Amino acid sequence: MDPLINKRHTLAHLLATVVLEHDPSAKLGIGPTIENGFYYDFQLSKPITDADLPTLTKAMQKLVKKGLEMKGNEVGADEARTMFASQPFKVELIDEYAGEGKTLTAYTIGEFTDLCKGGHADSTKDIDPDSFVLQRVAGAYWRGDETKQMLTRVYGIAFETKAELEAHLKQLEDAKNRDHRKIGKEQDLFVFSELVGPGLPLWTPKGTLLRDVLDGYVWELRKKAGYERVDIPHITKKDLYEKSGHWEKFREELFRVSSREGHEFALKPMNCPHHTQIYDRHPHSYKELPIRYANTTKVYRDEQTGELGGLTRVRAITQDDAHVFCRTSQIAEELNTIWDIIETFYTKFGFTLRVRLSLHDPNHFEKYIGSKENWQVAEDALRAVVKSREETVDEAPGESAYYGPKLDFMATDSLGRTWQVATAQLDMNMPERFDLTCVNESGAKERIVMIHAAIMGSLERFIAVLLEHTGGALPTWASPIQVAVLTLSDKVTDYGVKVSEELTAAGVRAVLDADNESIGKKIRVWQLQKVPYMLVIGPKEAEASTVSVRSREKGDEGAMSVANVISSVQASA
Amino acid sequence: MDPLINKRHTLAHLLATVVLEHDPSAKLGIGPTIENGFYYDFQLSKPITDADLPTLTKAMQKLVKKGLEMKGNEVGADEARTMFASQPFKVELIDEYAGEGKTLTAYTIGEFTDLCKGGHADSTKDIDPDSFVLQRVAGAYWRGDETKQMLTRVYGIAFETKAELEAHLKQLEDAKNRDHRKIGKEQDLFVFSELVGPGLPLWTPKGTLLRDVLDGYVWELRKKAGYERVDIPHITKKDLYEKSGHWEKFREELFRVSSREGHEFALKPMNCPHHTQIYDRHPHSYKELPIRYANTTKVYRDEQTGELGGLTRVRAITQDDAHVFCRTSQIAEELNTIWDIIETFYTKFGFTLRVRLSLHDPNHFEKYIGSKENWQVAEDALRAVVKSREETVDEAPGESAYYGPKLDFMATDSLGRTWQVATAQLDMNMPERFDLTCVNESGAKERIVMIHAAIMGSLERFIAVLLEHTGGALPTWASPIQVAVLTLSDKVTDYGVKVSEELTAAGVRAVLDADNESIGKKIRVWQLQKVPYMLVIGPKEAEASTVSVRSREKGDEGAMSVANVISSVQASA
Repeated sequence: MDPLINKRHTLAHLLATVVLEHDPSAKLGIGPTIENGFYYDFQLSKPITDADLPTLTKAMQKLVKKGLEMKGNEVGADEARTMFASQPFKVELIDEYAGEGKTLTAYTIGEFTDLCKGGHADSTKDIDPDSFVLQRVAGAYWRGDETKQMLTRVYGIAFETKAELEAHLKQLEDAKNRDHRKIGKEQDLFVFSELVGPGLPLWTPKGTLLRDVLDGYVWELRKKAGYERVDIPHITKKDLYEKSGHWEKFREELFRVSSREGHEFALKPMNCPHHTQIYDRHPHSYKELPIRYANTTKVYRDEQTGELGGLTRVRAITQDDAHVFCRTSQIAEELNTIWDIIETFYTKFGFTLRVRLSLHDPNHFEKYIGSKENWQVAEDALRAVVKSREETVDEAPGESAYYGPKLDFMATDSLGRTWQVATAQLDMNMPERFDLTCVNESGAKERIVMIHAAIMGSLERFIAVLLEHTGGALPTWASPIQVAVLTLSDKVTDYGVKVSEELTAAGVRAVLDADNESIGKKIRVWQLQKVPYMLVIGPKEAEASTVSVRSREKGDEGAMSVANVISSVQASA
Repeated sequence: MDPLINKRHTLAHLLATVVLEHDPSAKLGIGPTIENGFYYDFQLSKPITDADLPTLTKAMQKLVKKGLEMKGNEVGADEARTMFASQPFKVELIDEYAGEGKTLTAYTIGEFTDLCKGGHADSTKDIDPDSFVLQRVAGAYWRGDETKQMLTRVYGIAFETKAELEAHLKQLEDAKNRDHRKIGKEQDLFVFSELVGPGLPLWTPKGTLLRDVLDGYVWELRKKAGYERVDIPHITKKDLYEKSGHWEKFREELFRVSSREGHEFALKPMNCPHHTQIYDRHPHSYKELPIRYANTTKVYRDEQTGELGGLTRVRAITQDDAHVFCRTSQIAEELNTIWDIIETFYTKFGFTLRVRLSLHDPNHFEKYIGSKENWQVAEDALRAVVKSREETVDEAPGESAYYGPKLDFMATDSLGRTWQVATAQLDMNMPERFDLTCVNESGAKERIVMIHAAIMGSLERFIAVLLEHTGGALPTWASPIQVAVLTLSDKVTDYGVKVSEELTAAGVRAVLDADNESIGKKIRVWQLQKVPYMLVIGPKEAEASTVSVRSREKGDEGAMSVANVISSVQASA
């Protein structure tokens, strides 16, 4: 057994020992090790809260320092029942294990004996008293069964050394500080209202600016690639989804809308069926293809309230959606363009991308629509793209959609977590259902294909990921506020106004903080906001027509002209 | 009596004469004059369609040229019944008039005698045979009563002279050509789909570009004035509208949304309640005010299918909405800013604006919410704005909303039609209902006011008005396509590509038409599109690195450098 796991297990016994000192009538549940530590469950007559944990940790450290030995013996079931007569949960376990014919063992450390299958440090001499800490208290049902007693679970963390413990605690603190809900509140980006409802975020001016900057960047990349914007309503008669097949497929997640005339409408859960109606407004010559529609718009999904959380799961999802209508021969080039855009976009934020090539399952071709020939052409096109880019991808047979193969993009963030982000999906089904064609060189109708492509996917989810990835320190070009101008006193307010107007005129997103507060407090406020640049202004700077620059990345940069600050900000784009 | 009206009346008799020649068993209804002409109603055994009208018009002209005299006599009721024994509708009228004690008269022209109260040209010598024309055939119920017989109504138009008639016909043709539904189709701006449903327009790339240009201009004006964008979902729990009062007030027009968990949501019919929830996310110091939220977003109204028409009445309405949260003392300045924006925007398109100051009804103060004192302050603020601008407005007591006075802006278009467009409304109700406050100089909570302001109002309706106002000839800066590059032959396609790339790089919205069609046909196509500039390119232009410019306004402008074209387009902004 891993010695660290053995130590954690021994610590669980010590935890039970000190809890019994705190509450001698405590009934003991189980005390296993878990990732990074251990826990123990108790039924208490004298409650334990997070506030008690430092005292309990100290009591455990005291025991550790005594150099206690751990000793275990096999015990018979009857003997065990006598030993643990005052511990009903232990008796329940003894009955169960004995019924299964298991051998029972009891381990003693100091004054405390526990029913336990073993795997411990032999002595607390092997444990660094500063390498562990009790972390938190939570509720847990006995045996995880909500019809049974609610017990108190005390969690502990333990590592080999004090240094390792501290590194882990810092990581935990970091992750907590990077929670997008916390950053969203600190930076005042979005808010939920009880009256509007859960899963329906309201975006503040700063949050909306961030959305606009991100979406503007996607649009810049798409515009260069020949995309055009379209615009559609958020509702439709159910007829559209009956034809597309979504009425059947998305039945559960569709928000239904009723009209006073008794018509059935639905809130759109995706945009492709609407876009087919724009494509299909008149016949298209092959010369017009590819036609590429981009449309950042909200879709609505009737998620269950219990599954909603922050921005990662919402009911109003803003998609940066696009659909390419093209000939089979154009698939490779269009996918290449989409891949370029995705790569450019995610690399700019420092994400690492992995790509999965999701193909059909050759053993179950009956699950898919379209001919084998078309699948061959489509998958060959995808493989050709991969090959031409000399990329390593994970080929995943059986992972395609039923309507076509796809490229799935996975981004790894700064905490090492992986998120499925962008996607480019071939669709041979929708063109079939809506009879989408072009007139080809010989004047005949030719079936076209569609490519669904989203870069951020859901803006809400992407912003959540981005905030946690950057810890709220957004790149300068994407920061809603790029520069905060902080005045030392009222005497330089006029100069502060001049400086911020100069910045604004140059297209820099600047705010003036001329509040009647100490400069120290102002700096702390804007540090918390993770603003890329703070310009401190006092009489000296006013006189010299300069600003004292504190940048988020480089710290104090000394006096500078406003023009230099503008150049730095613009260089970040 | 106006001699023109008398002539029209005489022409109605001639119309009856020629219809009786066409169908001797026709039963006559009535034949009055109307604006610009006359009509006559008939029950026919031999139908008349629009195709018959030229022949009937000619027959009338022949009668006119005979110089027939019109002669009238009083007749007794019995005598009249005998005269019109074969005309049941006339007999019905005779019975009715006689019952009311009216004097009856019969007028004869040529062979035809009609029951008529008089007012005619004495002789057809006074009528120019080319000054009238039969216009169209329609159905009409006898006496406008849908339980009675459906008759055939033949409409004619008549003026003093041929020139006046032609001017009027041209005006009619213009109005027909300016129908925004016709222009929208010709210029491929928007489309409706049976599957999506009526009142739910889908916007093509060109239409979306037009929307973005217009909305971008409004945003440019607002941004300068300190507005910030916010973003909200399209649905909300009904709780929000119960609190705002809209659940009760908009009951009929609200699209209801049901969720799988049985919650009641609604599609938003306006944005103000959502915006209050953003404002109210944290307390505001008076120093932060005014706070100005702008938000171009769709609202949904459950209009009845029969009331929908083109873009003027839709179910998905895109509002360029804004809400200002301010103190009472800031009302005047904020209204002034809004007025400036509205004036700048509408003047740019050549609309003439009239303003109505809609005030409360002093005799029925019980109809309004808020104190008399607040109304006094609010209305004084509005009057102060009007005075400071030295504007003439129509004061309209009783025309305010129940929650505050407002400024209504009416635009007159190039056809002389008036449209209510923009509005700026003070609202003292919403801040009350949502308890919106700021913390004032003395640290106390102070009730604020809201101003609702829309510039275009509904983008859909504004675009309809704009298309009809301009006849589709949008100003260059707002045209989705500003320049069409037309090649004379395949030999200059490369040069065409180069020219259009140069234009695009300079931010000009250009398309290349390198189709294998005659230049004459290409020009006609782009003329119909009302594109501001056509650049014709042949070997001569390619050699000289010029383009031959045909501008929509000035016609043939001869050879020019591409740089000059770029300057002209940019100057139009």
